[in-house]
Amino acid sequence: MSSSSGNLFRISTWGESHGGGVGVVIDGCPPQIDLCVGDIQTDLDRRKPGQSEIVTPRDEADQCEILSGVFEGKTLGTPIAILVRNKDARPEAYEEMKDKFRPSHADYTYEAKYGIRNWQGGGRASARETIGRVAAAAVAKKVLLSHFAPDLEIIAWVKSVRDIVADVDPDTVKFSEIESNIVRTGDPATVDKMIDLIKEMRSEGNSVGGVVECVLRQVPVGLGEPVFDKLEADLGKAMLSLPACKGFEVGSGFSGTQLTGKEHNDPFYMEGDRVRTRSNRSGGIQGGISNGENIVFRLAFKPTATIMSAQETVSSGGEDTELTGRGRHDPCVLPRAVPMVEAMAALVLCDHALRQRAQNGQA
Amino acid sequence: MSSSSGNLFRISTWGESHGGGVGVVIDGCPPQIDLCVGDIQTDLDRRKPGQSEIVTPRDEADQCEILSGVFEGKTLGTPIAILVRNKDARPEAYEEMKDKFRPSHADYTYEAKYGIRNWQGGGRASARETIGRVAAAAVAKKVLLSHFAPDLEIIAWVKSVRDIVADVDPDTVKFSEIESNIVRTGDPATVDKMIDLIKEMRSEGNSVGGVVECVLRQVPVGLGEPVFDKLEADLGKAMLSLPACKGFEVGSGFSGTQLTGKEHNDPFYMEGDRVRTRSNRSGGIQGGISNGENIVFRLAFKPTATIMSAQETVSSGGEDTELTGRGRHDPCVLPRAVPMVEAMAALVLCDHALRQRAQNGQA
Amino acid sequence: MSSSSGNLFRISTWGESHGGGVGVVIDGCPPQIDLCVGDIQTDLDRRKPGQSEIVTPRDEADQCEILSGVFEGKTLGTPIAILVRNKDARPEAYEEMKDKFRPSHADYTYEAKYGIRNWQGGGRASARETIGRVAAAAVAKKVLLSHFAPDLEIIAWVKSVRDIVADVDPDTVKFSEIESNIVRTGDPATVDKMIDLIKEMRSEGNSVGGVVECVLRQVPVGLGEPVFDKLEADLGKAMLSLPACKGFEVGSGFSGTQLTGKEHNDPFYMEGDRVRTRSNRSGGIQGGISNGENIVFRLAFKPTATIMSAQETVSSGGEDTELTGRGRHDPCVLPRAVPMVEAMAALVLCDHALRQRAQNGQA
Amino acid sequence: MSSSSGNLFRISTWGESHGGGVGVVIDGCPPQIDLCVGDIQTDLDRRKPGQSEIVTPRDEADQCEILSGVFEGKTLGTPIAILVRNKDARPEAYEEMKDKFRPSHADYTYEAKYGIRNWQGGGRASARETIGRVAAAAVAKKVLLSHFAPDLEIIAWVKSVRDIVADVDPDTVKFSEIESNIVRTGDPATVDKMIDLIKEMRSEGNSVGGVVECVLRQVPVGLGEPVFDKLEADLGKAMLSLPACKGFEVGSGFSGTQLTGKEHNDPFYMEGDRVRTRSNRSGGIQGGISNGENIVFRLAFKPTATIMSAQETVSSGGEDTELTGRGRHDPCVLPRAVPMVEAMAALVLCDHALRQRAQNGQA
Repeated sequence: MSSSSGNLFRISTWGESHGGGVGVVIDGCPPQIDLCVGDIQTDLDRRKPGQSEIVTPRDEADQCEILSGVFEGKTLGTPIAILVRNKDARPEAYEEMKDKFRPSHADYTYEAKYGIRNWQGGGRASARETIGRVAAAAVAKKVLLSHFAPDLEIIAWVKSVRDIVADVDPDTVKFSEIESNIVRTGDPATVDKMIDLIKEMRSEGNSVGGVVECVLRQVPVGLGEPVFDKLEADLGKAMLSLPACKGFEVGSGFSGTQLTGKEHNDPFYMEGDRVRTRSNRSGGIQGGISNGENIVFRLAFKPTATIMSAQETVSSGGEDTELTGRGRHDPCVLPRAVPMVEAMAALVLCDHALRQRAQNGQA
Repeated sequence: MSSSSGNLFRISTWGESHGGGVGVVIDGCPPQIDLCVGDIQTDLDRRKPGQSEIVTPRDEADQCEILSGVFEGKTLGTPIAILVRNKDARPEAYEEMKDKFRPSHADYTYEAKYGIRNWQGGGRASARETIGRVAAAAVAKKVLLSHFAPDLEIIAWVKSVRDIVADVDPDTVKFSEIESNIVRTGDPATVDKMIDLIKEMRSEGNSVGGVVECVLRQVPVGLGEPVFDKLEADLGKAMLSLPACKGFEVGSGFSGTQLTGKEHNDPFYMEGDRVRTRSNRSGGIQGGISNGENIVFRLAFKPTATIMSAQETVSSGGEDTELTGRGRHDPCVLPRAVPMVEAMAALVLCDHALRQRAQNGQA
Repeated sequence: MSSSSGNLFRISTWGESHGGGVGVVIDGCPPQIDLCVGDIQTDLDRRKPGQSEIVTPRDEADQCEILSGVFEGKTLGTPIAILVRNKDARPEAYEEMKDKFRPSHADYTYEAKYGIRNWQGGGRASARETIGRVAAAAVAKKVLLSHFAPDLEIIAWVKSVRDIVADVDPDTVKFSEIESNIVRTGDPATVDKMIDLIKEMRSEGNSVGGVVECVLRQVPVGLGEPVFDKLEADLGKAMLSLPACKGFEVGSGFSGTQLTGKEHNDPFYMEGDRVRTRSNRSGGIQGGISNGENIVFRLAFKPTATIMSAQETVSSGGEDTELTGRGRHDPCVLPRAVPMVEAMAALVLCDHALRQRAQNGQA
Repeated sequence: MSSSSGNLFRISTWGESHGGGVGVVIDGCPPQIDLCVGDIQTDLDRRKPGQSEIVTPRDEADQCEILSGVFEGKTLGTPIAILVRNKDARPEAYEEMKDKFRPSHADYTYEAKYGIRNWQGGGRASARETIGRVAAAAVAKKVLLSHFAPDLEIIAWVKSVRDIVADVDPDTVKFSEIESNIVRTGDPATVDKMIDLIKEMRSEGNSVGGVVECVLRQVPVGLGEPVFDKLEADLGKAMLSLPACKGFEVGSGFSGTQLTGKEHNDPFYMEGDRVRTRSNRSGGIQGGISNGENIVFRLAFKPTATIMSAQETVSSGGEDTELTGRGRHDPCVLPRAVPMVEAMAALVLCDHALRQRAQNGQA
């Protein structure tokens, strides 16, 4: 299915950027997990538009309602449905897109695939769809923390904006450091440079991309499956399903190809009762299964496709034409991508924790 | 499931590197496709060990048997089971691994996950498991060519071995050029350098990694799904499930983060009746759906973990120890990874072609 | 997943009888199907409480809202979310059930499974959950009629209430005949008897069950899969998933065991270009696949578990006790089960039609 | 997928009655379960042809080979592939079926669906396909007994052959009693009558059907899911997927429709710490979830379609014609259906036990 993800902690998102709203249904959630709207709202607020001067000014409170699956503050084990209404939709801003395809957007491919599209906004390709993911992930994190990984930390940050690269240590960076600045990076020295670049891009009607890095700490050993559902494969798929993501690498990634086997291998040693590795070029995953070291990965996000200048394009009628971007958009997706990346990581871990418990009786 | 992949063209692989054999069951294959052992054997031969002086000398014919699903040379629409026996297994070479974990292999994580492992080889983590994938993909390609994409081309090649980078044009490179050399690259100027480096590594008991690039040409418009099963997400997962793969990028990938939106966007124009893009930084996929341009992606493969020198490790009993690699292994996985990459691409495309036909009545 | 059904036309229902509401998400629906609230409401009205004097008096309009997936009156191909709010919930009527398990209800097993339950009503075990199914099936029927089976008829009726058996010919019965009476049977001679029996049962605080029969006419040949997903297996599962359903039989069913093979076999003959069978003890399905004859099946529904008299039971604290039913309930589920049966049949057919098109290019 | 079943204990069967063989791949099996060929062969021998004078004389040893997933006598947690070769295939006996459809067989529907069929036998519709199910179920039973239900008993028997009905108490009947006679019934008084009837039918070139009843004792409380994957729904689907099965009922089933709610409800009472029911018209399942009482269900099997007399039929070319059955077939499927029914029950229970452990941490 196009809009469902996960095998046991299974989420189904729905909703277009312009329409009745967006939401998610979570099936398979363990019962008796404490859950209230506030748990979910905290993460939605980190994702929502209008949160700072460098993101889209679309004015959405993104207030969520839990419609089912929770009773007297606890999950029931039955489906949890969460709804967020669309408020500040302005379809008139999209009138021109009715007949013209925005370059590097999904307009043309949706039309080609379905013969129809909701041209009043990005439809399902809008980042608004990720509301359902972030909401579901808030639940997933509570499941992980209460049942499987009490000390789990999932932290993502902006590693680079175009050529401005932050110096961040995945093993020690703190969540509060990331959240202390609106660009969500972990290196104080680059915060202002990144913000300035994003503002500059916006003022030029242009956009910019970059890299998000993420670390998962205190993950149980044994998550992930041999062969097709390797943990890095499921993480990679989850991340590459985010809007604007064009690349994923784990551990040493592409730069690891510059090393020889002798340089690249991670020697094992005992730290008390625990098997550890001296280096972590494996990125916390070996043979598709977590080894207890920090899981570290990076994602490439392309510059936002919507830019405020004239571009060559074609009409749905098959004629060459021109289009100038309108509507309210992020000049750089990265600050809002950070909670999305964390969300997808939480969803993948939670699903694999349940799978591990199913087959092996623990996680 | 750990060992199944695909929604409609669904494959289930099985088998360890040492044991009764390896194989695959394909469920959901359309009927009346011409299929014989030779169709499959051709691809298996490109994957098999011992095919050249720069790959593992393990002596396996990898001769396949079709056990079901084919009648009088045509597929029946029912499951196709394919079996390859293991012949040249030498479990004695792995005796020492019974109690010691090979660094950067799956030995430790399998043991931690399952409490048991087949130490006589790499078990499911062995590249031998990919026989089932390559065999299934040979069928997938026949389905694609006969039903969905008569001019489809799936071509992968070695883009780099460590720091030796081949100059290959994805839009024009030919399959015969790749197959003309044992390292499977597309740039005559780098063939000998790559071979020499691999040989040098092997003589030192060392190993080396690199990048494989792949192009999919003449893919129908409309393959891929919004949201979770974006075409790049499914391709990424498929590739990251290959042994030793640590990174995946599509189109402009990580380097695209150095561009602004104005530089990165792909303008549309009409070429006769067909919608085309002037550049292809999207890599043939927009909004998760193929747009008819060439799909181009790259994968990072780490250096082979098995090296012939002493390494620090631990025993299954929890003691620090040392291990020297033995057994027969590839000093560089890249030449044999090329057909595996093509195979995974074919499987993903075939599955999405069937999904497209299910929902939209064409593909 | 407990709350999802279907492979390609996939529905996920959610919601408890008392709470924010109930609903469904449909994923995989083909695009460009005409769809409005009225299409769905018609079927919901046949299912809703309070529709006649022989069903529960709970006062719910069951007015649905389409939240996504439809644009300008047509399906988009993306998930269709449908919401129905709960209005006339009276949790106080359930206060006593907080600590006592209702006999032959799901109270005890939910508590045993999850360690928690929403005691303010039947939770997910309530027939209210079927709102999502009926809504989704209204969409499924439009897909079937427009793409796969333009003359398809799905008609169910009450075959018997306890020992009152209706004489109905599955090959000729009309939908309007069934809908002409509140008990939804097809035999005018039994209508009043059935109504009288149901009223009598209610006046005694008792309840009654019976059999629903269903015919699917003008089903395309070729729907259903060999082995596990035989059409009768998927129909049977769908029906047995309805509340209170205890049995399913297709074609000759249990009575077919009284015949010999010579008596039971359905001879083939040609009717013009079409292969027909002289009898239809197969019930329209052979080898798990539809053969074009009418598909006929029957379901047993037990008497409603809620009765208005004192019954022996136990408390959640593990003590023997007594409980007298309260709340508003159907004395007989059959009249409202009829649209549920039709709904499940439509969902199964639609899913198999898409599966058939995926693999075989038609349906 | 047509040939896969189960969510977590997932089996994929393959193979035609005439061809390279038949088999199964089991994915998701917990590791460290003792398993040898003998464990599987015992059940295969109960299913195999030629085991007695009242079943088909086809001479097959049905000797199985475990190809993967087991190491040093224990399961590895990775896929278990099991192969049984076809030996006594006699395709020449089917020569006439090449162009003629056998009445009430799958010949016509397979041809209509796929445009091709393996006419040398029943293909996938042959009961030979169930070898894979029975083999997988032998593993499932070991998983259940060792991890989830140490005292579990799964016992099926022939309840009736046509109008000869056995008097068997599901609560007390013993496996050894069933296995003590070749017809596999539990009532000594009916054994000879049933055998005589079957022999009489065979001598007349005719066939006969009947009912199989099955009890599952000592099933853990809590197996099964609300809504679509109710335990009775999954059991029903599993049983209805068996060749020749036309009906399924659980607990009071169809006869329960003759009772009122007061008569039908099962009162709860405490037996020590355990919640019990005084009667068991629910058949051990309430709200789709096991309640710890015996699970009892019945299946209708039609008379074997192959009969040795001339029947009216049509040719694949669309002409009216006549066909006389040949080949070796069971005059009554019931004795061999008994182990198949037990097998399907074991597979369903094992899958639900793993699902239960995944979500709720126990089973």
